[in-house]
Amino acid sequence: MFEELEIDKIRAVRETLGDQIMTTPAIAWHGSELEKMIGKDSDVFAKLELFQRTGTFKPRGALNVMLNLNEQQLANGITAVSAGNHAIAAAYCAKVVGTSAKIFMPKVAKPFRVKKAQEYGAEIIFCDTQPEMFERAEQVQKDEGRTFVHPFEGPLTVQGTATAGLEFSQQVPQLDAMILPIGGGGLCAGFSAALKQIWPEIKVYAVEPEGANTMTLSFAKGEPVFKEDVKTIADSLAPPKAEPYTFSACRHFVDELVTVSDQQLVEAMKIIFYDLKLAVEPAGAAATAALCGPLEGQFSGQKVGVIACGANIDIADFTQIVTD
Amino acid sequence: MFEELEIDKIRAVRETLGDQIMTTPAIAWHGSELEKMIGKDSDVFAKLELFQRTGTFKPRGALNVMLNLNEQQLANGITAVSAGNHAIAAAYCAKVVGTSAKIFMPKVAKPFRVKKAQEYGAEIIFCDTQPEMFERAEQVQKDEGRTFVHPFEGPLTVQGTATAGLEFSQQVPQLDAMILPIGGGGLCAGFSAALKQIWPEIKVYAVEPEGANTMTLSFAKGEPVFKEDVKTIADSLAPPKAEPYTFSACRHFVDELVTVSDQQLVEAMKIIFYDLKLAVEPAGAAATAALCGPLEGQFSGQKVGVIACGANIDIADFTQIVTD
Repeated sequence: MFEELEIDKIRAVRETLGDQIMTTPAIAWHGSELEKMIGKDSDVFAKLELFQRTGTFKPRGALNVMLNLNEQQLANGITAVSAGNHAIAAAYCAKVVGTSAKIFMPKVAKPFRVKKAQEYGAEIIFCDTQPEMFERAEQVQKDEGRTFVHPFEGPLTVQGTATAGLEFSQQVPQLDAMILPIGGGGLCAGFSAALKQIWPEIKVYAVEPEGANTMTLSFAKGEPVFKEDVKTIADSLAPPKAEPYTFSACRHFVDELVTVSDQQLVEAMKIIFYDLKLAVEPAGAAATAALCGPLEGQFSGQKVGVIACGANIDIADFTQIVTD
Repeated sequence: MFEELEIDKIRAVRETLGDQIMTTPAIAWHGSELEKMIGKDSDVFAKLELFQRTGTFKPRGALNVMLNLNEQQLANGITAVSAGNHAIAAAYCAKVVGTSAKIFMPKVAKPFRVKKAQEYGAEIIFCDTQPEMFERAEQVQKDEGRTFVHPFEGPLTVQGTATAGLEFSQQVPQLDAMILPIGGGGLCAGFSAALKQIWPEIKVYAVEPEGANTMTLSFAKGEPVFKEDVKTIADSLAPPKAEPYTFSACRHFVDELVTVSDQQLVEAMKIIFYDLKLAVEPAGAAATAALCGPLEGQFSGQKVGVIACGANIDIADFTQIVTD
């Protein structure tokens, strides 16, 4: 089961990704705001994945996918559907492997994120609705032979995100617990797969927004479910549905799912800003929100890891969210 | 000359500081905003010293001073004068070594910084004027036998800041150039002393705000000068005067001094925010401001280091500065 996620394979993938993927820093988090929330008797370590190229962990998976394209596929190019972070990552990786990218984004995507994707040379096509994005992406797969690069589904994507977990295990002391955000589950599946093999005793918590609890519903039902009315400020953690591979990997490697409210996400953004001077997007604060919220008091005398996984937010939006 | 700054002594100091001082991360800076400013043919590495305990590099020096106090001195406590970062650092270090801190701050000090110092248990005394702060600090030295911990002057302080340079040299490839902010010169003296011994060919640039060019004037005159009308948004880089030890160490280790305007500092804060998601205080953006301003075009084909040395700024002030 999950042979492709064996630790030696993850190590090999990390080698292959090379310098195009940064080994992002990890720090011991010493901060008065965090201390106020959870006291002094837990040691917290943070993986600062927001320093990754493109501002999030997303290129780890996307690059692993694209490095596995054959010559014909590279000649035809890739396509993707995304409101933001995956678009930027797909654009970056396409540039790295020397292929073209045609990316479908919603009209309402943040201009800040659109601009970043365009700067890497991707062709951005705006769509009115989500169904339209997927239909048009399907069309260019047929018409132009483009390869669809999924934002979170599939073994290659998860192998890529697993490299972040591998790195973290080399940067911090042995952890008792790890808290990971879960949206589509790509990051969570890979990161936890790596840690569970290196430290079999570790307990992995996954956190999703209350208003986008697709994975909680899917865990409960035992299969990926579709949730129509997704509503959260953590737009990066709000896919309308889970997918089979990441769903089953998350089920396998995650010990417990928790949810956080928008208000808890905002509070966590403020704590991170105050203690670490990092302006993260709401999704990037999810692990901290769980640490200070539903999981508060769980880690007395323990070492626990969190990740700041993304930060594609502009100054105006950040300010509005944290000062509202 | 500067025997106390020999590299082996710096290494020993780093050992002594131990876990109370973090080994802050360093990253290769890949960002589109920086690239727009300086092009693609320089490799830039950044020391993220703003993750240091207390939010700036200041405790490196202050802790080294306090670890050299004898029993009687520890019993009597320390005193310091500061508008912010040094106050927070002195408070933190006093707590670490188990001594008491009586710190004189101006009434106009940012409440954000005052609060941080108080959280570490320091007694904060507000003064109306700068002369008053220094007089009262002198008084408690006489009356209570407290040791005055200077914000930047003296060999022990500079030994402490040198540990940041030592760390950086172990984290990045050999650099052709290093850009360091210079205020009182404590950080600059130590950091450059370490790098110049490890990489003798490196060129060290020091940058100060146009409106607080005390060190430029001092270099020109060949001795420390007093500048009355200091005016810059980079309050952490605006001491009214240079002091003999750091002045002579800076003269010895710095190759070139440059100045930046407030506008250049603000632009650099935006570049750092956009590329790295870090909300730094103006002083923390000085090296980047020089890289994109007066030094632009100097480092073609070279590897150059910058430092984000401090970030004690609150959300409201940060927003106001970058959106004005």
